[in-house]
Amino acid sequence: MPRFAEPMARLIEELKKLPGVGGKTAQRYAFHLLRSSDEDAAALADAVRSLKASLRLCSLCNNVTDVDPCAYCASPTRNHRQVCVVEEPTNIDTIERTRAYQGVYHVLHGTLSPLHGVGPDQLRTRSLAARIEQGEVDEVILATSPTLEGEATANWLATALRKPSVKITRIATGVPAGSDIEYADEVTMSRALEGRRDL
Amino acid sequence: MPRFAEPMARLIEELKKLPGVGGKTAQRYAFHLLRSSDEDAAALADAVRSLKASLRLCSLCNNVTDVDPCAYCASPTRNHRQVCVVEEPTNIDTIERTRAYQGVYHVLHGTLSPLHGVGPDQLRTRSLAARIEQGEVDEVILATSPTLEGEATANWLATALRKPSVKITRIATGVPAGSDIEYADEVTMSRALEGRRDL
Repeated sequence: MPRFAEPMARLIEELKKLPGVGGKTAQRYAFHLLRSSDEDAAALADAVRSLKASLRLCSLCNNVTDVDPCAYCASPTRNHRQVCVVEEPTNIDTIERTRAYQGVYHVLHGTLSPLHGVGPDQLRTRSLAARIEQGEVDEVILATSPTLEGEATANWLATALRKPSVKITRIATGVPAGSDIEYADEVTMSRALEGRRDL
Repeated sequence: MPRFAEPMARLIEELKKLPGVGGKTAQRYAFHLLRSSDEDAAALADAVRSLKASLRLCSLCNNVTDVDPCAYCASPTRNHRQVCVVEEPTNIDTIERTRAYQGVYHVLHGTLSPLHGVGPDQLRTRSLAARIEQGEVDEVILATSPTLEGEATANWLATALRKPSVKITRIATGVPAGSDIEYADEVTMSRALEGRRDL
């Protein structure tokens, strides 16, 4: 006896490919879609389809976009001489939500990770190097995560992109705002001490 | 500045309609789909589409199926005189996984819930009542959840379906297998005592 009718089983299999989705969750999603209106199900199917058809990478900054150059690179109100380097397109949203940054971005689509065969050649840095080479950039902010790979990538980029006319900076590592020092691990705490500033 | 390119934003909105999926998770799914192969994305879109097109309810037991009657109702190896009544089609899988049940099913698609406007008339019990009326059933096992609504539904069904020739039973409530009695709540524990059996 098959556990589910064939169309149901097929949808569950496809949903299980989503990150963090196991059998139980896929089943819940599938039964939800079954109960939802025909329009909602069709809208989801269409959205998945058109995603792949209409998105590409910005030729300037590698951000995911439906127009080239992307909204940030094309904006006349952003500071194009300040470039924030991030690992993934999603990271842009994290930075935008601060409303504290008015420059543009550059997306690496990954970090250096020799264990996974990602070396300097696999990172998408060419268009950034070209912008720096042509004297279009004053500051490069390295906003990769303070993880092993993120730090290695930042250190490598700092060397690879170094040029006297360009300031290269790194985001601060420290105790997160709103959290108790008691729960900070040793590495975070020692970085917070190292990075202390005059008041 | 829009947070995401339009096709991305649209997919995120559609994904957020899935149960338990918020902005962050929808974003993760969407970026995963963007990175996955064209075939995988197309397969998901197709599976969602064909789900609504090819599934219906079994005319005998209300189970979700692509053939009518469903695999259980059509099976010559199941005991068609024993009917297990469940709230949702997913519950069938929970019972099948025990490999301890060889009868057929009846799906209510909900429970009595006066607060949500679900009365006896909204429950799909007609085909079950007809099977009982025609003397086709020996035992009805009420396997609704031991929640307020599930219990009320079971009690109401026990009265509504009562007939001298039909045995009506209710699944046991008690301490779950493998769990420590120390963590059982008072209601579960008193039900476990109530339902004790001779050894």
